[in-house]
Order: sequence, then structure tokens, then C-alpha cells
Amino acid sequence: MGLPMIFDSLKRSKPSQPTNRDATVRRLVQACHELLSEEGEASGTTRAKETLAQYAALDAAQRVSLFQALRTDFSPNPEKVLEAAHAYAHEPSSVNLAVLLHAAEPPRQELLRRLNRAPGGTHAIIGMRVKLLDALRKEPELAQVDDDFRHLLSSWFNPGFLELRRVDWNAPATLLEQLIQHEAVHEVRDWNDLRRRLQQDRRCFAFFHPAIASEPLIFVEVALLPAMASEIGPLIDTNAEPGDATSFQTAVFYSISNCQPGLRGVSLGNFLIKQVVDTLSREFPRVREFCTLSPIPGFRDWLKERVTHGFAATDKRATPKVRKALATVSPQFAGLMMSAADLRGPDSPLPALKRELSTLCAAYLLGIGEEAGTSSNAVTKFHLNNGARLDRINWRADESDKGLKQSLGMMVNYVYEPKHIERNHEQFVRGRTIASSAVEDLI
Amino acid sequence: MGLPMIFDSLKRSKPSQPTNRDATVRRLVQACHELLSEEGEASGTTRAKETLAQYAALDAAQRVSLFQALRTDFSPNPEKVLEAAHAYAHEPSSVNLAVLLHAAEPPRQELLRRLNRAPGGTHAIIGMRVKLLDALRKEPELAQVDDDFRHLLSSWFNPGFLELRRVDWNAPATLLEQLIQHEAVHEVRDWNDLRRRLQQDRRCFAFFHPAIASEPLIFVEVALLPAMASEIGPLIDTNAEPGDATSFQTAVFYSISNCQPGLRGVSLGNFLIKQVVDTLSREFPRVREFCTLSPIPGFRDWLKERVTHGFAATDKRATPKVRKALATVSPQFAGLMMSAADLRGPDSPLPALKRELSTLCAAYLLGIGEEAGTSSNAVTKFHLNNGARLDRINWRADESDKGLKQSLGMMVNYVYEPKHIERNHEQFVRGRTIASSAVEDLI
Amino acid sequence: MGLPMIFDSLKRSKPSQPTNRDATVRRLVQACHELLSEEGEASGTTRAKETLAQYAALDAAQRVSLFQALRTDFSPNPEKVLEAAHAYAHEPSSVNLAVLLHAAEPPRQELLRRLNRAPGGTHAIIGMRVKLLDALRKEPELAQVDDDFRHLLSSWFNPGFLELRRVDWNAPATLLEQLIQHEAVHEVRDWNDLRRRLQQDRRCFAFFHPAIASEPLIFVEVALLPAMASEIGPLIDTNAEPGDATSFQTAVFYSISNCQPGLRGVSLGNFLIKQVVDTLSREFPRVREFCTLSPIPGFRDWLKERVTHGFAATDKRATPKVRKALATVSPQFAGLMMSAADLRGPDSPLPALKRELSTLCAAYLLGIGEEAGTSSNAVTKFHLNNGARLDRINWRADESDKGLKQSLGMMVNYVYEPKHIERNHEQFVRGRTIASSAVEDLI
Amino acid sequence: MGLPMIFDSLKRSKPSQPTNRDATVRRLVQACHELLSEEGEASGTTRAKETLAQYAALDAAQRVSLFQALRTDFSPNPEKVLEAAHAYAHEPSSVNLAVLLHAAEPPRQELLRRLNRAPGGTHAIIGMRVKLLDALRKEPELAQVDDDFRHLLSSWFNPGFLELRRVDWNAPATLLEQLIQHEAVHEVRDWNDLRRRLQQDRRCFAFFHPAIASEPLIFVEVALLPAMASEIGPLIDTNAEPGDATSFQTAVFYSISNCQPGLRGVSLGNFLIKQVVDTLSREFPRVREFCTLSPIPGFRDWLKERVTHGFAATDKRATPKVRKALATVSPQFAGLMMSAADLRGPDSPLPALKRELSTLCAAYLLGIGEEAGTSSNAVTKFHLNNGARLDRINWRADESDKGLKQSLGMMVNYVYEPKHIERNHEQFVRGRTIASSAVEDLI
Repeated sequence: MGLPMIFDSLKRSKPSQPTNRDATVRRLVQACHELLSEEGEASGTTRAKETLAQYAALDAAQRVSLFQALRTDFSPNPEKVLEAAHAYAHEPSSVNLAVLLHAAEPPRQELLRRLNRAPGGTHAIIGMRVKLLDALRKEPELAQVDDDFRHLLSSWFNPGFLELRRVDWNAPATLLEQLIQHEAVHEVRDWNDLRRRLQQDRRCFAFFHPAIASEPLIFVEVALLPAMASEIGPLIDTNAEPGDATSFQTAVFYSISNCQPGLRGVSLGNFLIKQVVDTLSREFPRVREFCTLSPIPGFRDWLKERVTHGFAATDKRATPKVRKALATVSPQFAGLMMSAADLRGPDSPLPALKRELSTLCAAYLLGIGEEAGTSSNAVTKFHLNNGARLDRINWRADESDKGLKQSLGMMVNYVYEPKHIERNHEQFVRGRTIASSAVEDLI
Repeated sequence: MGLPMIFDSLKRSKPSQPTNRDATVRRLVQACHELLSEEGEASGTTRAKETLAQYAALDAAQRVSLFQALRTDFSPNPEKVLEAAHAYAHEPSSVNLAVLLHAAEPPRQELLRRLNRAPGGTHAIIGMRVKLLDALRKEPELAQVDDDFRHLLSSWFNPGFLELRRVDWNAPATLLEQLIQHEAVHEVRDWNDLRRRLQQDRRCFAFFHPAIASEPLIFVEVALLPAMASEIGPLIDTNAEPGDATSFQTAVFYSISNCQPGLRGVSLGNFLIKQVVDTLSREFPRVREFCTLSPIPGFRDWLKERVTHGFAATDKRATPKVRKALATVSPQFAGLMMSAADLRGPDSPLPALKRELSTLCAAYLLGIGEEAGTSSNAVTKFHLNNGARLDRINWRADESDKGLKQSLGMMVNYVYEPKHIERNHEQFVRGRTIASSAVEDLI
Repeated sequence: MGLPMIFDSLKRSKPSQPTNRDATVRRLVQACHELLSEEGEASGTTRAKETLAQYAALDAAQRVSLFQALRTDFSPNPEKVLEAAHAYAHEPSSVNLAVLLHAAEPPRQELLRRLNRAPGGTHAIIGMRVKLLDALRKEPELAQVDDDFRHLLSSWFNPGFLELRRVDWNAPATLLEQLIQHEAVHEVRDWNDLRRRLQQDRRCFAFFHPAIASEPLIFVEVALLPAMASEIGPLIDTNAEPGDATSFQTAVFYSISNCQPGLRGVSLGNFLIKQVVDTLSREFPRVREFCTLSPIPGFRDWLKERVTHGFAATDKRATPKVRKALATVSPQFAGLMMSAADLRGPDSPLPALKRELSTLCAAYLLGIGEEAGTSSNAVTKFHLNNGARLDRINWRADESDKGLKQSLGMMVNYVYEPKHIERNHEQFVRGRTIASSAVEDLI
Repeated sequence: MGLPMIFDSLKRSKPSQPTNRDATVRRLVQACHELLSEEGEASGTTRAKETLAQYAALDAAQRVSLFQALRTDFSPNPEKVLEAAHAYAHEPSSVNLAVLLHAAEPPRQELLRRLNRAPGGTHAIIGMRVKLLDALRKEPELAQVDDDFRHLLSSWFNPGFLELRRVDWNAPATLLEQLIQHEAVHEVRDWNDLRRRLQQDRRCFAFFHPAIASEPLIFVEVALLPAMASEIGPLIDTNAEPGDATSFQTAVFYSISNCQPGLRGVSLGNFLIKQVVDTLSREFPRVREFCTLSPIPGFRDWLKERVTHGFAATDKRATPKVRKALATVSPQFAGLMMSAADLRGPDSPLPALKRELSTLCAAYLLGIGEEAGTSSNAVTKFHLNNGARLDRINWRADESDKGLKQSLGMMVNYVYEPKHIERNHEQFVRGRTIASSAVEDLI
């Protein structure tokens, strides 16, 4: 038996509780202490079940009070940590390391592991984190509690434990309605729309975890096409005839959506995309190109900001071409704030500004004017951080209300080229964005 | 994004390698560093797969060399830990806690998490630990590496992620032959023997983990009987007629075996027994008693030791009755060392010593003469630590060679009484053994 | 080896073909002869596959031509039958019976059995029969061909080979959309409507056959309620709150629909209802009453007929009450022909005629005025033939357009009382309808 | 509704019963009549269940009495048949054909169809037939009853309703032990033996029917080899190393066994072999040769007969070579009747007679001396009737006791060549055996 097991048997959490907790929360905090105790260890899953039942009965304020207790009562003891750190610095032996790790690990981590033993425990913990993330907005000091949730969930939802499954029209309706509910990029209008997205020239893949097997964690929708798509309309046209399998050369990832807000910060999308690339490569050896057709949320807001404040004079990345485009667009900016309907209409200023807006969009995506050196756009960051290349900006790619409002109808293709993924990512982390020459030329 | 994620992107492991490593191990250690790096993060599961493949090609000496590298190159940096501990002691903020946890956690934990991403990763890691446990016997300083394996495996094999399944004669032969192979208590002689153990008055339950779904982790064999069993023979008699379901009042756990040596120290048996008690209670509401019929390994060796050295004169727990029993047995001890065949024969000294040996066996199981206050017997410790009660010592309960050799044919029943489990466990941890009055009377 | 096997090896079908068949059909007829021959027997399933492929390529006229060929070329030879019948009459031995059966069975039966050997053969044969039933309308002499299809399909779709499955919201969308498509009584408006019909206070059961496992054969929708339903609206109200399981006392079968027109005449509904009664009785021991809420198609047409022609003066079953009701309704009959919207409106003649129309509806359902003695209504005949009792006529039970058009808004409950089913059926076959006293009182 | 349905409602079976039936059988016969009646039709599956339960309680004599009743009371009425045959001969209309078929079909067929409706009905009917086949040996007039069982079972177990499944070591033990039990050619000695037969260079395929899904109907064992096997030993050697998949060029069917004696006469083996050839062709495109390695039961008995009686002088097929071989063997025939051990020993007459015995074995397999023109050996008839070619006689191919006793150690390869199967079969039916030139040369 290793040393930590000895330490497991020591009481690690303090029993005293502040007086501003109501009785219900106090009882629950007490139950948590007991769950961590010797008796709790022996109870199998009974105490874990009971403790989760107590949690389920809390109201919103009580939940926040509990989360505060997790922070104050279930954190490492700084003195003991310091003592252990000294001992380890003095002699980095196995025993001293074990003592250090035991002292440094917040007891709430073991608490979560014990709660997880209950039937449905994983599900409950994910639900608890949804509430914690809510609370975190107002109470930033809860970040350390959330760190422990995220740390454990990341370990438990390691890709090695996930199952990639294709979802098609043979899937249970209970699963399909979750796709409809969680699709966050291009709304699924109805069941016919969904059916079209699951036909033979489309693919939908989702990650599942055995502990919550009936709920997808994240899913991606893919169109198999003869070439890289430049507009979204035909991809989600319910009446489009399915394409012929012999013509497939490109797989276009046109939507990726998370289903579990309680898994925020747990890396899933990156692995999903790469496993789907693998899977499709095997099923369709002739498909060589893997890319996205992605929205550009935030471009119009960014543009407004630029129109108002311009680029810093010292910013070398803001090329004359970019500055000139901004100068051209600025006077007409009011026109760009039209309703989506007007932007689609005959008096739209868009056609006349195609060149300049494309340049400015490239600037936005390349992070020009950003301190970090890379774009502030979350979608861009996601794909570039995954190792994709910024490949093509598409004009009039999404003329829906949403598309016009967020990016004046433009969309972007990111390309995943397996052999360059590591290098692209490494560059991105160092503050540089890998883009195609077509995009570079725009600026 | 929480703070630890930022830290994740920093290099945490040192690139320099000692010169006594051979080139193969050096390459693998380098691969491990890269897997932990930015590029590794972006590679999806490719690098993990490759790294595991490199590991699989190592020979025994290279594996030990690798484990040494995991200890020397992938441990926390004592100075950084101390620095972080000081900062946390000075101000226990979320940021300081995050920095502390990041500094204190051995980088090999993250390495294992990344290796686990590969297909078959969990299986490989368990296999790696089997080898590590081997190496550990000669190189005790590897304990700290093993601590990290055990810590992660304990988290991943949390009961909330395990599936309890009944195994019956409908199970795949591939699974059944694993039971035959791993049965550690009462050998399964052949397929007929196994079939009898899976009939309607017997139960076999096993835990499975989805990541290694075709291999049982641990299994327990149960006999459903009208009363607590006092000998093993009839329970594993291939020709015994199956009992009638209306007569079942007692569930006797007569064998529990681990199938995964790589999961040593990960608590499984405790949860298995309690979930099986639950499951059987629901299926057979009339079954009220849950007990074991357990072997007593080590009794004869213990007895030899006592015969040689006696009990300390100051040991108050060694009652006069116990001392007298020892005094009676000692002169005849040579006879007790006979072969099993002779012990079964007409000249066996056993019948004449039934009372004294029962007393001494009770003393052994109650931990009389032990510093810890509780028995040194691993089976006893397992059940008492799980909250069972030491209930009855059975004379002539197992007259097989093995049974006579280890315990002169005696076996013991431990009783699991749900409402006393927590208390019994708590007492045991404090150095006391809960036993029935029948057992107490023996001493 | 029995005698018929010897006969199997004789050529049983005539090779000559009439000249008005086109070449494609001639080739297919030839293929059928070969499939029945020795070579065909040896080919495994190859020839069956090829023959079905030839059939699949036929156009409508060619199909009729093929069906004619099945009639003319694959019927029993009258002379041989007569000869065999004489021999059997002379000596009813096993051999003579075997010869008789071989002579009398139309060779097209064996042809269908051989076609069925092909992968997908059963499905193809059912599809073939759909076309045959079409053709039969214009070519009544094809009845004898259809008799053989029905005979074989009845044997193959024997209830012993069917699987009863509950269909709920967990079912594949591919299955659920078949329910939407085939629901023939109360149209499923959309997926929300369907979901409501599959919630916890509703049940849907379907029969499946392993050879066409992904297609339901027939399904029934059931509402679990505190009492017998008297109107359809609440049962299919998408927004209705699900009822509480503790309140269920009655199971109301409110819709039963066939999915396979090619199985016409194969008894499925009768067995479905009785198996569902069994299944629900076991799941809900407190549910004691099993009834339908059924439409009354044809009542308004029947009424029109009666208004025009009255009852025969000699018809003793047409009671004075019935005759009087008809006399009262007749002058206002034009009003009853209003549009459904008007019938729902303030000037509707319905309220004033409730009593008379109920009486006439009872007369319709009891078969008053019918030669057969029982109702000509197919739904009524189905349930009464299954052994149900005519229990209650419900006024304003279905005010949909369809409900008003076919039955002026009335619906009827048939009650299935297990212990009276056989007797009720037997009475019905003898021309009598078992009805409740409430219904009897109406006339 | 077709005409036969009208006739279904007429009583078809006679109620009077002979006096020598005991009361139990009389009650059961009465139940059968009722099951066929109107009330029976309405009862769903209840009466079928009850009738089967009555049957299950019969003793052997009562069963025979019941089978007699099925013959006497549930046969077609000769007068009605004759009448219907006359009508049909006079006018072969649909109605007259329907009347004819209804009159000619033994009512026990419909009885079996109705019994089949009960849960487990198919299984019970197959079991009933096992007993009927037993009874048939003593009471040949029951053949006509058996004809109806076989007719219905052949229709129900049509290959279109069977599922071909590969059985490997992952199969449930309950299934595997049925293989051990039913293996009829080369006994499975124990579970190790079975495991070897299911490894990667071996295949086992079985047919299953959904109505008795847990029981195989028939199975075949196949060895994948570089070339046609000439002896059985290496194929069933438990210790043989599995062959390498790249070397597979020949699939050798070395055992085929029926599991359901109640399905005698239902063609299964023929379809099984052909579907397995198809399946293996797809999995192993490089495997081009499909053959058997088959025992030659009856050769030694045949030889004894020939030694005693010789060939008819007029038999042209008995060539001089054959006659000469017989002349050579005859004087030494006593030696060939030695025990198997002696035949394997140093004084065995076998080596000296290799040429002659091979010639005589070829004669036996080619049916020389048989009136039918083809061999009387059931295995030979089975494969040749399936369209195989007699390819090679193997000396010292099976030196087990059984192999020496039945065929003096010889075995034979039949080759299935897809493109010649139909022709070979057709020749065989005409009394000719297709053999390789190697075999022809032997005679």
C-alpha cells in the first residue's frame, strides 16, 4: 500500500462552519465532511447518494453558499503545504512527495471523486458545475473551486474514455432532439432539416462518455462535396439532392456544437475534429481536403471599433492596404449598420465595398491591431489553436440575418492539413497566424 | 479559461538526460517531453500512439531505465514548489493555488493523461504499471512514480465509471476463460466446474470498465443457500443439485478474485461486495444474511511463529485461554506440519486439538499479539476494513491440500450487515476488531 | 425421405408460352420455370436473386402480364388432380395423399417459396403482392394467384414468428417516421404530436417480422386513463399534461394502422390487440378495462341511404324507435350535409337531433337493415369479429372535419373483456352483435 | 377477402373419436378440434398455449395415440376432395381452385399453424416431430402426418428466414456447448479442442431461425489452408499453430452437423454450404477453392457385401480393373476386419492393398453396382446432389478407430465449383456422378 493511502485516512477538512450559512447548507457541508471521513469511505456509495440528494434540494442561494464552503472549508491548509514543500525541497523522496501532494491537493477533489461513486454521480457533478459557472460570474473567488471541477472532468473525459459515434437517421429520436436543441451555429429548423443533414452526403459525429451514455458531449456536422464550400446556403438546403459518393473530394465541417455547458474548458472539439478526419479518410480514401466553413462572429463589432478608433500609428502589422480600406469604409459605416433585410436589398452598400471589407475581415482574422498578435475571435482561436490554416474568406457566404449581422455575410474556411497541424499550432501559440497567400494578399 | 490551462502551455519537464540511458530509452524520453509540449498538445492522439508504440518495443532493462527517467525527469521542481507554497501561504488566492497545484503535480501525471488519449491507452497504462510494480520490488525509490499511476487509475476507475454485470453461462467463452484463469481462491478445475458455479443457485458478478470492456476487473462468486455455509466442499461440488430458489436465505461470498494486477491498490472489492449485496437484496427480498466463507491464509505460519516465540508476557490481549491453548499445541506442533494427506488420515493430530486450534485461530484473526492491534492477515484486513464482522470459525471446512496447509482446514465467515458497516469499519481503523460473541468466547 | 420430395423433382409447370407476352416477360416466365427445375434447386439462392432482379425491372403492363402467366402457367393440372383425387378416394393412403397434395398445390406456391430464398426475398414478395392487388381490381381472375400469395404470407407471418415491440421516443427516427406515414386514423401532424403519443401515459406497440425487421407491420396506439374515453381531442392534444401512473385504470386503443398493404388479409390486428392487452395487464395490474375509442366511418352515407330508402317494412329488427328517429331526422337531413365548419357552428342542426342520431347510429352499428345481420362497417366488423362488445356511442366525440363528415362527430367504444371474447366472436359469426344494454336501449 | 377465408370458418374436422383412446388423448383431440373452430380463431393464442400444455403432459403411448388421431381425424375428406376435383376439372376458376385447395389440404396443417401461434410454438412443434419420427419407425402409416410437419417446417425454415452467423470463441458458452453436443463427424473432445476449431484459420458458421434464436439449426466447420487437405489429423490437432492469413487459398469444409433432428428432410445443408462459400469468397478474395474433407461411412460394409456377392456379370460399369481389385482383396478380406489398433499396426494388410482398395473405394463412391446408378452413401449423395464433384480419394486420411472401421482410413474430397454446381446436380439427378479424372482413372 503506497503512502497516500495512509494519509487518506486522516481527517483533511475542518469541521467548524461560519454562522451565515443556513441550516440546510450546514447539514450538507457536514455530510461532505463525513463523506470524506473513515465512515464515508466504508459506506460504499450510500453516503454519496444521500449527499447528492441533499444537494439536489438546494435553492440558488444555498448553492452559492455551498460553493463558498467548498472554497473556504475544502482548500489545502497553507501551513501544512509550506511545511511539506520545505521537507520536499530538503529531500525530494517518495515519502516527502507523497506528503506534499496530499497536502497540496484541495480536499474538494477527493470529495468530488467520492460523490462520483453514486449512481448518476458524473451527471450530477456536471450539473453542479453548470451552476458553479453561473455563480462564478458574480463571485470570481470561486475560480479555485471551478479549477478543481475542470481538472477532474478533464481527467475523466480524457479522449481515451470517449466514444466517437456516427449519428444518422437511424439514431433514437431522444438523441436527435438533443442535436436540434444544441446546434449552435446554423439552427436546425425542423426534423426535415435534420434529416437532410444526416443523409448519405452528410455526416454527423458525436463524442459520448459511458457514464452519461445517452447524451452527446459535442457533435460536428460535415458535408462531403466535390470542392471546398464557399457559402452555407446549399449545405443546409433541405431540398438539395444528395451528392454522389464518387464526387466527394472535400469534407467541410460546417458546424460544431457543445452539448454540455458543464464541460466548459474540457478539450473535446480538437480531438473530435481530428478523429473525424481520421475516420473519414478511411471511409473515403479519395477525400483529401478537410476544411471548415465557419462564421465570423464579432467582425461587424470589431469594424465599428476600428472605424471609431482606427489602428495605432505604430502598429506595423496594419498595412497601408488595411488602413486605406478602413479609410474607405469609415464614411459609409452607417450604411453597414442597416437591417439585414436592407443589406440584402438593392440599396445595400455591400457590393461596392467588397474589396475593402474583405481586406478588413482578413485583418480581423489575422489579429491585426490585437495585442496578443492573434485574433480575438473565439472561433478563429479555436481552429488556429487546433493547428488549422486560415485559408479563404468567402463573400456573400451567409446572407441570413445572423450572418449579415455578425460578419456582413462573409464566412471563412479553415483548412486542416494533417502534416502541418503541429507546426501551425506551435506558431499560433507564439502569436503568429498561418494563413494562405490568398488571405495574406488581401492585406 | 482557468489559470492552470495557461500553465499547461509552459514546458514542465527537463530536456537533459543522463548518459547511462541507451539510445532507445533516450528517444522515448524525448518523445515523452514532446508529447507534453505544445506540439504534442496539437497532435491529437498521434504522438500518444507513437509513444506507446515505442514503449511496447522496450526490453525489461529499458523499461526500468524508463521508469527511472519518469522519476528523475518528470517530478516536480522542489524550488518552484517551495516558491509557490510561500506565495500561497502569503495569500491563498485562486491564482496562487493554481500555481501551487501546477508546481506540485508531477508532470508524469499529465504525461499519463496524454498517453491515455491513444486508442487502447488505458490498457497500455495498466500493462505498464504491472511492469512498474515488478521493478518496484528492486527499486523502492520508484514508489513515487507508482503513486502517480495509482492516483490516476483510482480516479479513472472510480466506481461511478464501473459497470456491474452478472456473468452467467450465456457469457462469451472469451470472458469465461478469464474467470477460469484469474480465480485465485478455489481453482476452477474445468468448464464443468465453471458451469456449476454459474447455475441458478449461484451468482457471479464482475466489474467492467468501458475502456477495457472485454476484460473483467474483479469478480465475486456467490452461493445462495438456506443458511450460512460452514464448509467449502458442497459449494463447489460439480455434481451438487441446484438449490431451490424458495429456500434461499443467505448469500455466501465464497471467492473474490482480481483480474488486473495493474490495478493494485485501486479500491474495487469493497464496492463490488456492497453493490452485489444491493443487487441480490433486490432480486431476493427473502435473503437477509450476507456473509463470506473465507480462507485463512497464513494461520499455520503464524502458529509456528507463536510456538517458537510465544506471546509477549505484557500482552494483555493474550488471555490465559489463548496462552493455555498455545501451551497445549506446542508439544504437538511437529504433527501439525504433516503432509495434507496425513492430516486427513487416521493418525492426524487434528481431532484432538480442535478446541485449542480454534482458540488460536480466533486469536490470529483478532490480531492478538499484533502491534497494529488487528490481524496481519490480508483477507481479514480486507473484510474488516470493508465493515464486516468476524462471525464464525469453521472446523474441517476445507480439507483440500491448500486448505490444510494454510489453516489446518479451518475457514471463517465474515458477515456484512449493512447497518453496521460504517461503525465496524471505523472501529477497525482504530485498531479494534468487531467479532461475534461465539468468536470472542473462543479466547 | 417422404414421397413429396420425389415429386418435387418432376417438372410441374408447362414450358409453352402464349404469343402476346413480350420478350421480357417471356424471359422472366422462363426463369421462373427454371427456378422450379432441378437446376434451380441446386443453384442455392443465385437464380432466385436473378429472377427477382428481372421482376424488379418490369413496367406496370409487364407485371400484369406476368401475373397472368402465374395464373395460366403455374396452376394445378385439372386432369392430374382428378386422377389423384380418384386414387385418394379409392385408397386414402399416405402415398395417395402425397400425390394428391402435390397435384393440387399450384406450382406458383413453390415458386414463391423459392423466390423467398433470395436475400430480401420476403420484402420483394410483399411488394409484388401490392402490385398484384392493384391488378386484381381490373382482372378479377387473378384472385387465384392472390390466394396463393395470401396463403403463404399468412403462414410466414404466423403470430408465432412476430415480435411485439413497444415503440417509444427512444426508437430510431427511421422507424418513427414510418408511424407518421402509416397512421391512418388520427393523422400525426408533426414530430411533437408523435412525441406526445409516446409519453409515459401513452403506449405504442407494433408487430415486427425478422425478415423485414426495420419495418413495422401494424401498430396500435393506446392511452392509459382513469376511465373510458368519450372524445378523441384530449387524447391527441399535444399540450396535455401526461397522466399519473397511479390513476391508470383503463387502456384505450385509439388507433390501429397497418403499414404493409402487401399483407392484406393476413390476420395481424386481432393478435396485436390481444397481445397488447396481455402485456399491459402485466405492466399495470390495476388496469382492468380494455376498450377502443373508434371512428364510425360510413355512418353519414348509411344515413343518407336510409333517408332515401327507409327500412324494409318487414324488417323486424328496425324497431319503432329506430323508425321514428329516422322519420324525425329525414326532413332535416339536408342540414346534416352542411360543411364541417357549419356543423360546428351556432346554426348546426346537430344539438337538436342528438337523441335520434344516437339511435340511428346504434342501428347502424348493430347492423339493422343489413342482410348479413351485422354491420357493414369494416371497423365494427373487425372489433366484433375479434370478440369485442359494442359498448357506448359517444356524442361530440370527434369534431374534426373528418369526424363530422363520416359520423356527425360520434365515436364508439368497443370493449375487450378477455373472458367473453370467444363467445362474442362466435355470436358475431352467427350474425349477432353483442352490445351493452346502454346501446341496446338506444334502439 | 379471398374465398379460402370463408372456408376457414367452416368446421373441417370430425368430432367423433374411436373408443380405444384414453381420456387424456380424447380431451386433447377435442382441444385440437376447438382450436380449429371459430372460438379457437378468436382466442388469440390462449387456446394454442393450453393445447400445447396438454400435449406436453402426454406419455409415449399417448403421443402415438395422438399422432394416430392426427392421421385419422385431421385428414382431407376423400369425397369432398373428389367433388372439388370434378368441379375444378369442369371449370378451373379461382373459386373452384380455392374450394379444391381447401378440401385437399389436411386440416392438421391449419392445426399446426394455429399451435405455432403460441409462445414457443415453433420449438414445441419441432419437438413434436422428433417424437413423430420415432413413432413413424413402427407405424409407417403416420408418414402422411409427418409429410404435413415437413411441408410446413420447410416453408417456415425457408433460407430467406434463416440467419447465417459466424460462431467464434466470443459466442456464449450456452451456444458453444451445443456445438460440442451436436458435432457428428469429428467429436469435439473438450473445450480446448473447440477453441482451436474457432481460431483465426478456422471458421464455424451456423444457421439460426429467429423463432428459436438461441439454438443453431446446423453448422459447418471450415479450415482455411494453402491447399486441399488430404488428412483430418492436422485439421483438428489442438496444438497446431494457426496458419497465416496470407497463405489461405483453399477452404476445406471438414464437418457439417445438424442440431435439430426435428427438422429432418428440411433442406438446410445445401444452402449453408453455398452461403458460406459466398461469405468466405468475399472475406478472402484469394481463396479460390472450396472443397470438403469427408468421411466415407459404409465403405467397409459395402466391401464385405461385394466380397460375398461380387458384381453382377452384366454390370458394364464394373470395369475389369474394379473386378480385378475385388479379386485381389477378397482372399485377404478377413485381415481387413481386424481391430483398428491392429490395422494401424505393423501387420496390417492395408499398405499392400492401397491400390486395390482405392479402386474399390472409387467404385463405391461412383455407385458402381448400384441400381440407382449413384452411390448409396448418404454423405456422397448429399454433396453430389448439392452439385459438388467427386475429386480425390485420400489414403491414410483418418486413422482414428472410427475412420478405420468405416472406410479403412480413407477420406474423400468433394469440390464445389460455383460455375458447375447446377450442371453437376442435374447430372446426378439423372443418375450420373461427376468425378475428377484422377478418380475415374482409379477404376
